[in-house]
Amino acid sequence: MTQTPSIEFWFEFASTYSYPAAMRIESLALEHGVRIDWRAFLLGPIFKEVGWDDSPFNLYPAKGRYMWRDMQRVCNVYGIPLNRPSTFPRNGLLASRIACRNSDEPWLPQFVKSVYEANFARDLDIASAAVLQECLAGCVADPGKIIEDAQSSQAKTALRERTREASDRGVFGAPTFFVGSEMYWGNDRLEMALRSVA
Amino acid sequence: MTQTPSIEFWFEFASTYSYPAAMRIESLALEHGVRIDWRAFLLGPIFKEVGWDDSPFNLYPAKGRYMWRDMQRVCNVYGIPLNRPSTFPRNGLLASRIACRNSDEPWLPQFVKSVYEANFARDLDIASAAVLQECLAGCVADPGKIIEDAQSSQAKTALRERTREASDRGVFGAPTFFVGSEMYWGNDRLEMALRSVA
Repeated sequence: MTQTPSIEFWFEFASTYSYPAAMRIESLALEHGVRIDWRAFLLGPIFKEVGWDDSPFNLYPAKGRYMWRDMQRVCNVYGIPLNRPSTFPRNGLLASRIACRNSDEPWLPQFVKSVYEANFARDLDIASAAVLQECLAGCVADPGKIIEDAQSSQAKTALRERTREASDRGVFGAPTFFVGSEMYWGNDRLEMALRSVA
Repeated sequence: MTQTPSIEFWFEFASTYSYPAAMRIESLALEHGVRIDWRAFLLGPIFKEVGWDDSPFNLYPAKGRYMWRDMQRVCNVYGIPLNRPSTFPRNGLLASRIACRNSDEPWLPQFVKSVYEANFARDLDIASAAVLQECLAGCVADPGKIIEDAQSSQAKTALRERTREASDRGVFGAPTFFVGSEMYWGNDRLEMALRSVA
């Protein structure tokens, strides 16, 4: 019995370039015969470690202005809808706890994409339980139960540990991909990461 | 008479990802029928404006460690030799003054590539006039004259103005490409920038 090769996809719901990566990764991974390990985490604590209390795209306005223009071009190339969120970065804490707590559920990819669309295409507040309830509605029979579970201390601990793992492994931004110990940063590196899977 | 469409290539001799861009841009631009405007500038003054007194790859070690690994992979893909410089970032001031002062000379691309190879393949100190003299030797009859001219106050002013122009136009890193007013940042965007040239 041979194991399906896999790629770890580390994403943060507020991260702009994680959005096109999340929308593209499934079909690309399928083409390459690669399984995806979905790894939601938080960038906030990692940014804090280097002294940032906000997104670098807000702290460095020239970079931020460029990023929004570049995101529009990138999304155009892939045919992915983009409406610049009226709030950036949005708080993805609850969504991340849900995604972290349900990493291996078959509905997880659908939920993740739905949250990204809510944030970056529909300009909805993904910190809101009502919005996440709607995102979950297409995925599970009882969204309320999933949200309740995500507010448990176990769910909080799980996301904290996940984020610490990211930091320990050298993650400094999102999206980040791992193929074994090899790290790839950015939506631009998704294809290279998948090609590297033996 | 129609004008050949053009792309502006803004580069900094200490910038890692400017190296593969400099080595790749000529053949790609030729394929697209695009003229290259070579624009040497300095990142130091631009980094200072946002409070950085060193390369962000040194200031943020996790990002720096990743960059060197990624650079190796990127250079492997393109078949470009890379030997991590023993000093980073190297001081490209004199080289930039030469490149800025001789932007339109037919030998300029050869000189630029030679300086990048000295820095990133041969681990030579590109701040040294002797090293630059050698880089110029394959380009011009009298390298000493070019170096002397690059130390004139006109040459210093030209590079200062060039760097101010970069900052005014929103440049925050290198390489940066402009197609008209449209800005593209990073070696990864070279193909997209060239495709955008009508």
